[in-house]
Amino acid sequence: MEIGDPLVRADALAKVLGKEKYSADLYTPGMLWSGVKRAGVSHAELVSVNIERAKALEGVEAVLTAADVPGPNRQGVIHKDQPVLAQDRIHYAGDPVALVLAKDQSTLKKALELISLELRELPGVYDPASALEAKAPLVHPQNESGNLIIHATQILGRGAAALDDCQTVVEGDFEVPRQEHAFMETECGVARLDENGRLEMSVSTQAPFRDRLEIGQALGLDPFSIRVKAPAMGGGFGGKDGATVQCLLALAALKASNRPVIMVWDRRESFLAGTKRLAGRLKYRLGADADGSLKALVCEIIMDNGAYANLGPEVLGQCMECAAGPYRVLNTSISGKAVYTNNPVGGPFRGFGAPQAAFAMEQMMDMLAARLGLEPLEIRRRNALKRGDKNSLGITLTTSTGIAQCLHTLADHPLYLQAEDWKKKSPPFRARGKGLACVLHSVGFGAKVPDYATAKIELTGEGKFKIYSGIVDMGQGNASTYLQMAGDILNQDAADLELVLPDTELCLPSGSASASRTTYIFGNALIKAAERLKKLIQQKAAMVFASQDREDDFALLPRTVRHLPSGWEVSLADLARMPNKSELTATGYFKAPVAPEAKEGGSLEIKGFGMGHRLFSYGAHLALIEVDQITGHIEVASYLAVTDSGRVINPQIFEQQIQGGIAQGLGYGLCEDFLLHKGQVLSRDFSTYILPTSLDVPVIYSKAVETHEDSGPYGMKGMGELPICGPLPAVANGLADACGVRVMQAPLTGERVLNALSTAGAAGEEK
Amino acid sequence: MEIGDPLVRADALAKVLGKEKYSADLYTPGMLWSGVKRAGVSHAELVSVNIERAKALEGVEAVLTAADVPGPNRQGVIHKDQPVLAQDRIHYAGDPVALVLAKDQSTLKKALELISLELRELPGVYDPASALEAKAPLVHPQNESGNLIIHATQILGRGAAALDDCQTVVEGDFEVPRQEHAFMETECGVARLDENGRLEMSVSTQAPFRDRLEIGQALGLDPFSIRVKAPAMGGGFGGKDGATVQCLLALAALKASNRPVIMVWDRRESFLAGTKRLAGRLKYRLGADADGSLKALVCEIIMDNGAYANLGPEVLGQCMECAAGPYRVLNTSISGKAVYTNNPVGGPFRGFGAPQAAFAMEQMMDMLAARLGLEPLEIRRRNALKRGDKNSLGITLTTSTGIAQCLHTLADHPLYLQAEDWKKKSPPFRARGKGLACVLHSVGFGAKVPDYATAKIELTGEGKFKIYSGIVDMGQGNASTYLQMAGDILNQDAADLELVLPDTELCLPSGSASASRTTYIFGNALIKAAERLKKLIQQKAAMVFASQDREDDFALLPRTVRHLPSGWEVSLADLARMPNKSELTATGYFKAPVAPEAKEGGSLEIKGFGMGHRLFSYGAHLALIEVDQITGHIEVASYLAVTDSGRVINPQIFEQQIQGGIAQGLGYGLCEDFLLHKGQVLSRDFSTYILPTSLDVPVIYSKAVETHEDSGPYGMKGMGELPICGPLPAVANGLADACGVRVMQAPLTGERVLNALSTAGAAGEEK
Repeated sequence: MEIGDPLVRADALAKVLGKEKYSADLYTPGMLWSGVKRAGVSHAELVSVNIERAKALEGVEAVLTAADVPGPNRQGVIHKDQPVLAQDRIHYAGDPVALVLAKDQSTLKKALELISLELRELPGVYDPASALEAKAPLVHPQNESGNLIIHATQILGRGAAALDDCQTVVEGDFEVPRQEHAFMETECGVARLDENGRLEMSVSTQAPFRDRLEIGQALGLDPFSIRVKAPAMGGGFGGKDGATVQCLLALAALKASNRPVIMVWDRRESFLAGTKRLAGRLKYRLGADADGSLKALVCEIIMDNGAYANLGPEVLGQCMECAAGPYRVLNTSISGKAVYTNNPVGGPFRGFGAPQAAFAMEQMMDMLAARLGLEPLEIRRRNALKRGDKNSLGITLTTSTGIAQCLHTLADHPLYLQAEDWKKKSPPFRARGKGLACVLHSVGFGAKVPDYATAKIELTGEGKFKIYSGIVDMGQGNASTYLQMAGDILNQDAADLELVLPDTELCLPSGSASASRTTYIFGNALIKAAERLKKLIQQKAAMVFASQDREDDFALLPRTVRHLPSGWEVSLADLARMPNKSELTATGYFKAPVAPEAKEGGSLEIKGFGMGHRLFSYGAHLALIEVDQITGHIEVASYLAVTDSGRVINPQIFEQQIQGGIAQGLGYGLCEDFLLHKGQVLSRDFSTYILPTSLDVPVIYSKAVETHEDSGPYGMKGMGELPICGPLPAVANGLADACGVRVMQAPLTGERVLNALSTAGAAGEEK
Repeated sequence: MEIGDPLVRADALAKVLGKEKYSADLYTPGMLWSGVKRAGVSHAELVSVNIERAKALEGVEAVLTAADVPGPNRQGVIHKDQPVLAQDRIHYAGDPVALVLAKDQSTLKKALELISLELRELPGVYDPASALEAKAPLVHPQNESGNLIIHATQILGRGAAALDDCQTVVEGDFEVPRQEHAFMETECGVARLDENGRLEMSVSTQAPFRDRLEIGQALGLDPFSIRVKAPAMGGGFGGKDGATVQCLLALAALKASNRPVIMVWDRRESFLAGTKRLAGRLKYRLGADADGSLKALVCEIIMDNGAYANLGPEVLGQCMECAAGPYRVLNTSISGKAVYTNNPVGGPFRGFGAPQAAFAMEQMMDMLAARLGLEPLEIRRRNALKRGDKNSLGITLTTSTGIAQCLHTLADHPLYLQAEDWKKKSPPFRARGKGLACVLHSVGFGAKVPDYATAKIELTGEGKFKIYSGIVDMGQGNASTYLQMAGDILNQDAADLELVLPDTELCLPSGSASASRTTYIFGNALIKAAERLKKLIQQKAAMVFASQDREDDFALLPRTVRHLPSGWEVSLADLARMPNKSELTATGYFKAPVAPEAKEGGSLEIKGFGMGHRLFSYGAHLALIEVDQITGHIEVASYLAVTDSGRVINPQIFEQQIQGGIAQGLGYGLCEDFLLHKGQVLSRDFSTYILPTSLDVPVIYSKAVETHEDSGPYGMKGMGELPICGPLPAVANGLADACGVRVMQAPLTGERVLNALSTAGAAGEEK
């Protein structure tokens, strides 16, 4: 097993054969089914909940309301503003008002239908701009700043004043939509309270260790009386970063008389009650010198956070941090607001706030290039950040910075070189265009949230190795990369390495599977653990051979240790059977460094979490698109992603993240339209919320520009979120190139494109 | 500047513009020209040298013979058997008998013609098998073992006895030719003895520090009174690893009355007196189980070392070490002999002994596959070494071992996938074939020769950096990679990094530019030096700001240092001007680890130098060839090299080494025929010794399988010699695939192929 090897994922076979066990597969006969009644209205006073008829139904074990919730009844990763069961007010249509435990699914369904609510409907707010108006209805009247959750500003250099000195200034006003996570596996889990009062839960989650705290705080339980296990997951994308079923399921278990309980949201419930990518509006002004050097950027960002804060303010922080793209801009004024509305809750989604920012900034770059008569590639080259530059927050980039190299590689790629020829061959009534987009994405939690992992490895009595993963693999393949790293250091075959999935009882806290951090953070910890265990084994072997030799003279081989000078061997199983078991386990701890500017006393005051990163991955994307001028439909013919995420540990898993991220980004850009009307979800399932299928995804070419990141395991950086940031702006720029129109509202549906084309046709404007 | 960046070489512009100064360009008016009279006969007693007429010629400064040589008059890197000027015996036609110093080139030429020799010719030996016969004439009568220089054997497991247990045994008898280094720049240098008795020399050399010792020992001088500088080189390939002009030039300088002296060999002199790749014969028996698992290998290798040992025995050692290819063979018996003859001297040449071994072993693998009905790719897959295996010397591979990955990548490449289709489309009278070859090459000097480097970096008063290279860049581009590594760590732009070329007075000893070691060894040393200097600069900056902060809070930027928390900056120039200059220079030392098996008391007794490596690079090569059945001419249509040399630091320099090595390997395999008759060189220049031109070189596809080598700088391993090992066996296997004939004598000229085809046609044999 070598680093760089395109090893097949450890979980591939079980998943292909359908043998993998997900949380909902842990159902066993006799389990109680639990589920919740949701409010259905967007804003109301909750006068009463009528549960009597449900309770009376044969097979119903319990029906609970807010009154039955022990503890403060407030959940949220950082901002504790969301009830487990709604108390006296409904903030959005997905609010849960009652929890039912029943002997089976059909009884559960019937019981939920028998619950009725007495409500006094209130006027609601459904877009953030209106929500900030003086007399707007308040979503959380007790919130000090009305509907405003956070207002953060970041000024660098002379800020907005620098616009006055620019040779050229372009302006744009962009709107980005919600996006549904649409994971294959909806929110689910099983739980049981044992006779000693300990609660055990297996749940589809990105953050088992943090779930313990969130459940404990919400329900007034000792977090250490809760055990959370994270089996295989069928996708998360940020939608399982924070409690979904957890607190409800824990509450159900508390009332289930020690019987096991299951909760599984169906697709409609997931659409209604799951968090969404934050929709928002971004107003940009970007100024440059005559030669295209960026000089000033002013942005005003306003995000629709929905009914609860969730991690929306942090998403906003990342959007602000990425607002200037991977470019050198010496004067910036970036303002961001996250706002309560009575819409579904906004939260983390692969890319966090970066895709929103890229849609705006990358179109601004093209508009500026057009104004100055520069090629889109050229203006990006001139402004590409390099190591040593300050980013738009004023943080000096001291880590590997390969955006210039990505642009260089893109410029040399046949797809780029042949794009103009390809465009000329467009069929009748179709227009072809090429669109560029540069992307960046931070790695890790940033300056304000401790970002660490703890890995554990054990040599078993059979001479095999158990790797205890403290961090979830929600499908992206990081767990396989952990095995590859440990296998490389311990020199063991895949068959002799077993992965222990996250379990708060067996594994060690390592933070959530999010923020493109898993392989970077846990990998660093794991390398330490593996090297320590290797040394322990070598020492033990030296003892066996009564050798004075250096440890390096003992080589670990698959299931054995060889004393190299003599050629003598002892099996790992024999070594493991010797006394002193404590020598058979090693742990490794890694905490990510923090940008000095963002520490106490540093020059940078970070407003809000999610900002102040010191480590970024970069990419340069190219989309070749064809627009049907009759329907407005955009077809992406081919796509190129050039990526700097440092060293690639497993090219196959790297490639898979690129392909998946771009497919998901094309969905966000072209067809995934999460429609609401006064807080009510109109696109309730996959018949109206359209995901791209394999037929909609073009051939995606991928090239890695492998810089070396000193702080990363084997020189790597995270990249799970990076690729999703490119497709929307690349396609939007391709559309402008093809037809001379700019659509600033996403997704770029046929309807919007057609509108833009006819407006442009009428006005005879642009190009 | 980032690792992984395909940066243009630092020396590219000067070379393309013809502005680079090579040793011969250091000629200045008034220099004395020096040159030698060579024996011309292959074996003789030297009765007398008549130099009077030459001495009397106007403009001749001095004419020297062996009697004028101070000191022992013996040179050689390890084996001191070669005179600076021949004493009483001529061992081969290139032996120098008199050294002339003249005012200009034409006078020098005339004077050399005026020297005559009185010789008593002796019967000679011209092939190593005859040289080992009982009554063969002796090249060095004083040598204890007659014409045998060294006889080494390596037995692993049950050795030859294991052949008896094999299901199948194949046999082969292979002959490999000499090869001429054919560097663009022939051997040359300038030297001067100053008034204080110090000798300064600028010379085209791969080993300036060792040259000092070799000159000192040969001429009885204090090595530390000699300064050797190594300017830019126009190729070395092993032919400048050890003294060429050095001792003669030093002798000339000693007798030149403090005037500067130049010596430049012309092409014919270089052909006659330069070392060659060792020709030899390899008899192989290879046995396997029915499933193709290799079980026993017996080889007898005999090498024609020519008139002097030079590094021939070490080349033989490497040939033996690579005899089994990158395969797992548990029982081996490998015997090697290096033999004196009266032919030109055999010595190191890119690949050392590995290309010779690959020619034999890779054909054996195909023969075995054919016998067992296996695909050539499949038999290689089944036997590919992996980490933890013992190699054929019994050394456990504990370093990165990517041959299986190379084969995997080759198997997925379009060239391989489409090869069978391509073969079917062969034009009339032409036959097409595909040939595979796996290659391996060691990195570094092996177990017996200390393998270290010392790097030095200085911060100059202008705030720039000087990198003192202790190791020569003979054209391969390693020096540019040094700048890239230092630039990465110190975060400086290329323009602010200056390379100081090797100079024994300014730089530190780092061994020769050879053995695929330069970037690996010097890179490791340089990283230490750069990190130390970075820390010194950070400490100095902390002092300036009277800061309590950690050093990490000070970031190096191009020409400046920034205190990240505050944003304050101080220029490197200002820092450099502060007192305590000792803080402005850092050195780094790296010594390569040695395989524990090969250390004192280890299980492996290494016979001869050049063996016992612990680190190897690997490759899998594919040649698609077309044979003209009328002329026997082989045309290589396309070529694929998949390489595991660990992490690639600069893809452009990597690619260049691949392309160059394969072109040179194709010359060795197909057309470079260094012809001798009784020790006399028949192919004396490029009109008869045919190098491949750009028109002869096919499109070469290159893929890197980037494993991570823990001991290497950024995970890299050396690969300068690896690619040259593949073309000859890959083409030979392609020929057998195309026409069903095996040519076991290289190069595979049209004549040999035609002979084989007609013999096969007559016998109607094979296939």
